[in-house]
Amino acid sequence: MKKFMDDDFLLSTDTAKRLFSACRSEPIFDWHCHLSPKEIYENETPADLTQLWLGGDHYKWRAMRSLGIPENKITGDASSYEKFRAWACAMPYLLGNPLYHWTHLELQRYFDIDEPLSEDSCDRIWEAANAKIKAGGFTPRALIEKSNVVCVATTDDPADSLDYHRMLKEEGDFSCKVIPAFRPDKALGIDLPTFTDWVHDLEGRVNRRLDSFEEFCDALATRIEDFDSLGCRASDQALTEVPFLRAEPGEINRIYKKALRGDALTADEVAAYKTELLRYLAKEYAQRGWAMEIHIGAMRNNNAKMFRLLGADTGYDSIADGPVAQPLSRLLDSLAEEDSLPKTILFALNPKDNYVLGSMLGNFQNDDAVSKLQFGSAWWFNDNIDGMRAQMQALMNLGVLSKFVGMVTDSRSFLSYPRHEYFRRIVCDLIGSLVESGQYPNGMKRLEEIVCGIAFENAKNYFDLHL
Amino acid sequence: MKKFMDDDFLLSTDTAKRLFSACRSEPIFDWHCHLSPKEIYENETPADLTQLWLGGDHYKWRAMRSLGIPENKITGDASSYEKFRAWACAMPYLLGNPLYHWTHLELQRYFDIDEPLSEDSCDRIWEAANAKIKAGGFTPRALIEKSNVVCVATTDDPADSLDYHRMLKEEGDFSCKVIPAFRPDKALGIDLPTFTDWVHDLEGRVNRRLDSFEEFCDALATRIEDFDSLGCRASDQALTEVPFLRAEPGEINRIYKKALRGDALTADEVAAYKTELLRYLAKEYAQRGWAMEIHIGAMRNNNAKMFRLLGADTGYDSIADGPVAQPLSRLLDSLAEEDSLPKTILFALNPKDNYVLGSMLGNFQNDDAVSKLQFGSAWWFNDNIDGMRAQMQALMNLGVLSKFVGMVTDSRSFLSYPRHEYFRRIVCDLIGSLVESGQYPNGMKRLEEIVCGIAFENAKNYFDLHL
Amino acid sequence: MKKFMDDDFLLSTDTAKRLFSACRSEPIFDWHCHLSPKEIYENETPADLTQLWLGGDHYKWRAMRSLGIPENKITGDASSYEKFRAWACAMPYLLGNPLYHWTHLELQRYFDIDEPLSEDSCDRIWEAANAKIKAGGFTPRALIEKSNVVCVATTDDPADSLDYHRMLKEEGDFSCKVIPAFRPDKALGIDLPTFTDWVHDLEGRVNRRLDSFEEFCDALATRIEDFDSLGCRASDQALTEVPFLRAEPGEINRIYKKALRGDALTADEVAAYKTELLRYLAKEYAQRGWAMEIHIGAMRNNNAKMFRLLGADTGYDSIADGPVAQPLSRLLDSLAEEDSLPKTILFALNPKDNYVLGSMLGNFQNDDAVSKLQFGSAWWFNDNIDGMRAQMQALMNLGVLSKFVGMVTDSRSFLSYPRHEYFRRIVCDLIGSLVESGQYPNGMKRLEEIVCGIAFENAKNYFDLHL
Repeated sequence: MKKFMDDDFLLSTDTAKRLFSACRSEPIFDWHCHLSPKEIYENETPADLTQLWLGGDHYKWRAMRSLGIPENKITGDASSYEKFRAWACAMPYLLGNPLYHWTHLELQRYFDIDEPLSEDSCDRIWEAANAKIKAGGFTPRALIEKSNVVCVATTDDPADSLDYHRMLKEEGDFSCKVIPAFRPDKALGIDLPTFTDWVHDLEGRVNRRLDSFEEFCDALATRIEDFDSLGCRASDQALTEVPFLRAEPGEINRIYKKALRGDALTADEVAAYKTELLRYLAKEYAQRGWAMEIHIGAMRNNNAKMFRLLGADTGYDSIADGPVAQPLSRLLDSLAEEDSLPKTILFALNPKDNYVLGSMLGNFQNDDAVSKLQFGSAWWFNDNIDGMRAQMQALMNLGVLSKFVGMVTDSRSFLSYPRHEYFRRIVCDLIGSLVESGQYPNGMKRLEEIVCGIAFENAKNYFDLHL
Repeated sequence: MKKFMDDDFLLSTDTAKRLFSACRSEPIFDWHCHLSPKEIYENETPADLTQLWLGGDHYKWRAMRSLGIPENKITGDASSYEKFRAWACAMPYLLGNPLYHWTHLELQRYFDIDEPLSEDSCDRIWEAANAKIKAGGFTPRALIEKSNVVCVATTDDPADSLDYHRMLKEEGDFSCKVIPAFRPDKALGIDLPTFTDWVHDLEGRVNRRLDSFEEFCDALATRIEDFDSLGCRASDQALTEVPFLRAEPGEINRIYKKALRGDALTADEVAAYKTELLRYLAKEYAQRGWAMEIHIGAMRNNNAKMFRLLGADTGYDSIADGPVAQPLSRLLDSLAEEDSLPKTILFALNPKDNYVLGSMLGNFQNDDAVSKLQFGSAWWFNDNIDGMRAQMQALMNLGVLSKFVGMVTDSRSFLSYPRHEYFRRIVCDLIGSLVESGQYPNGMKRLEEIVCGIAFENAKNYFDLHL
Repeated sequence: MKKFMDDDFLLSTDTAKRLFSACRSEPIFDWHCHLSPKEIYENETPADLTQLWLGGDHYKWRAMRSLGIPENKITGDASSYEKFRAWACAMPYLLGNPLYHWTHLELQRYFDIDEPLSEDSCDRIWEAANAKIKAGGFTPRALIEKSNVVCVATTDDPADSLDYHRMLKEEGDFSCKVIPAFRPDKALGIDLPTFTDWVHDLEGRVNRRLDSFEEFCDALATRIEDFDSLGCRASDQALTEVPFLRAEPGEINRIYKKALRGDALTADEVAAYKTELLRYLAKEYAQRGWAMEIHIGAMRNNNAKMFRLLGADTGYDSIADGPVAQPLSRLLDSLAEEDSLPKTILFALNPKDNYVLGSMLGNFQNDDAVSKLQFGSAWWFNDNIDGMRAQMQALMNLGVLSKFVGMVTDSRSFLSYPRHEYFRRIVCDLIGSLVESGQYPNGMKRLEEIVCGIAFENAKNYFDLHL
């Protein structure tokens, strides 16, 4: 029996251990996350472990609700200690859930605590961890530096001022490069009640009226330029379903104006608008060498009552299951036809889409880049051992795992970097088992090149990151 | 090499063996099955092994047809011995099929026969088993008691008299509690040719005319009350596709009357009727603390010719593949909005839906119950080692496996209880491998609590079963 | 650690090794491939390893594009050596891709080269392999005979002259039987721009005008007769989606004439035409005892620009993801109703359909044949270890793996026969692990019967092949 989460955690063969030794200290480039540039800039010490761990983590909230814990102890007005205790008592029942491993990796790596968390150890860990926090080293920047992160790309709205990014850049004394990523969900969200307000925000940001779709696109291009000037290397679009319905500019302009008047749009109008705006944006990305991330299949805010109480991103999202292949093929091809398909990273939230996306890549690969089309790492509900293995097995069967741009935390937490370590262990174990079973030659030089590539180098090259 | 199906069957580690020792003698609560309360009441000794084993088991029929065995030897007028011989000869070719394991577990546990069934052993086993049957101990009640079953919930039509349930309760000398479960498929089946006749049956049962949808609902509520008085703790709905289309009561009443006149309904009328009836029923369940089981994705009676010859449930069903996420989310949310979502158990027949359902649970968990929303065990075409592992891995990655309400036989056979043992072995092996690979601490007390929970205690608590 | 791709490659247990010994020298019946009967007839020695290996293999092209290799070195005018060198340099990065194993199996089996291919070994292998080719034994017929292939079924258009098949038959001095298979994609492709031209080709072939749908069907029946006279045992239809929309003969005739006039058809017209033509053809197949293969889910020519440059089958296809269950059930049932469902082999390109197809089989099994409905082997994007295991695990859980008709190369390459060996190793390892883990009795006679069945005998019996 292996010891609980020791140094060889998830490494089941000698080759896996050797490979992990080779890549464990590679730097981290966290090219997609939801960290707050404001928090990084302000760099405050958290009040206690509850704030640091449970303050905004809807993964944990969701798990606690699944155990019947009252909302009061999750997002309510129970004390910090009560909330932590509820989490500690929940922990042993999360056997097999990635939160179990994430929690203990974080305790080990940031707090030097090896003891499993449970109701028994609750008070000891509460006191030890809070003492460490108080002793220092738990500000956002300290945690990022301790984790050997050389670059993080946050996720930013096109109407955002990017002030914190600018101030971080000007300040210049943080070893980790912090760059924005462009996330135009609200620009695409013409069917959301927030649309007109958001257009007004954007008008304020660019200081001009956006009465036509052309002016709206110009404003987005202005912001893309602003993002680019702060080092942005990627955009990210979240699509519950992939739209594809072509329409003429005049028609899109009509739809845009109709939405601004507050009139309800038909499904076809929404699809046409999204298609043509995505195409416009993609061309802008391609011109600048940005990568276009597409996150497919999140179905959000399923619980209307809790949405009214707590808002978005509070643990009430799940997996959509519509068809993907046909519209995605048509969208990408419509760009390839005009030589304006950017580097593209496709993420599947529904694991049924792994082979659809994995096989889609090959339709558009060429010598613009090494693995120009990428299959994004297992994400959110798939961000666990099974999900990561399934994604990588699809990728290696259908394409080139060796050139995979690898892991992102996709996280709001400054403690989430051990997920990169977790991922690297899984990569090394997967590749190690190919070698140990005689499926790949035992040549360490090449194998090290491959695992270090997946850990860091591939992403660095793909996004053309200069440190 | 492990011995064939010995005491350590499916237990690949020492921890798995220790865990199975801890839970193997837990009682069985078979909270969803298709046993006949009449047969339990009448308690007759079967004529022979063919009647007991092959008389109504469409899983076995289907496997025999796949081997090209003539229908005469399956459901036709061949002799008992000929049918058994056909099954015995088929057996070795069912390598890897769950029927292979079920058959041998049943031979071992009920007949003390360890020999593999094949054409060679056919006659020996035929004689030995029939001698045992004749010697006694093979009535329905004897088999149930021998299997340590403390409660079975049968599956009953809302128009059923429940007479056998009543007589069993009054008789009071059977150690296993037999309770009904409410299965309103025929009430929901407004698009089936059986609908008007069934409404007349229900009218007869409640002794009043059901000319309006409101009266129809009242009648169903009356029957829910009757079921409740006999200890019912759950309803079960089978949905090929999940409907969601809201409509006003007046509109539903119009649709109901249209159907009773025998007029064909549109697809939207059917969807609206099903949606609103499901919502009505769910509220009734919620009031009584019943659990609502939803079995999604069976596509039935695909072979029209054989349906005419043999009727339903004869081995001609398969797996549907429509989208599930959106209508299911809307249906559950429409109930949560009114604080009337009952405890709900979602079953997927199509394994592509495992991650959709597993992630749906979390949208509606709260402190009404521990794991109020449950992901039902791998069912029918997934009721095999791979299917059970896949369902539990989805559940543990997305939620809380520890609080899983576990296995049901879903069976018509009094010999099917070893499927609970089979399931427990798989659970223990899965959890054992987490411990052995260092993914979970080796603390037997907690582990035993978890496996005994999944084996029996979780279901007992969830359904609020009082023995 | 196992040695790289040695004699025990993929055989992880002793039982697996014993089973592979039993079946490795079974003959090969490659009942679905894309070999050229012309090339077999002309039997020319290839110019070099590049022509033999890279000349038409869109799997390899696709992998090379994924590594950012310029098209010039893939399908362009770079020299043979440059193209080979590009492939050699790509090779080590294809870790985990089936091409890695196929390439090395081919080097081992046909060239006695055990060294892994990479930039280091590139020149050595280039010279050694080309010397062997020059020395002889690398003509199509020599490669087929060396591979112990006793029959290949090529894939032929209904308008094809079949001249090369006829000449091969008349010549009579090739130990491998070469038979055609009937692939009516262009007859079904009423929505393709090629339709009217193709009808003219068919008119030329049957020497009469095909002005009505009835005449068109008669012409196809004539060709089916021609194919049958040359030993054809199967047809193959490729369906991106399964059509099912019934229509009267007059309506189909109207649609047929409309298409011949060059008028655009509605989606319903296309679906009705495909449904009724498929039904017509299926009845013809059934009468002759042919098997009907249905390959579901290929989405072709996704890259319009590259299609214009390189044409079809050049590496720009991927996996579709529409629903399958309902129309497939209706189509097969409409034939079963008329006692005219042929032996049918269902292939899924999207692995999400494995359980849908696997469970569909049972709806139509009967004593017309042993496993009359078959689940076709893992195909194209699934033709790898994971895909083959997943297909066989679905089949064994849902039906009868023992009677599986097994592997086909589906290939254009005369070097692809080691894929049968690869498949047999995977079969033996899968079955071996069932035995070693105590899930199936260790009786070698039966086990050998089963693996030799899957390797060759089942297909021989199923297709009623007489050698």
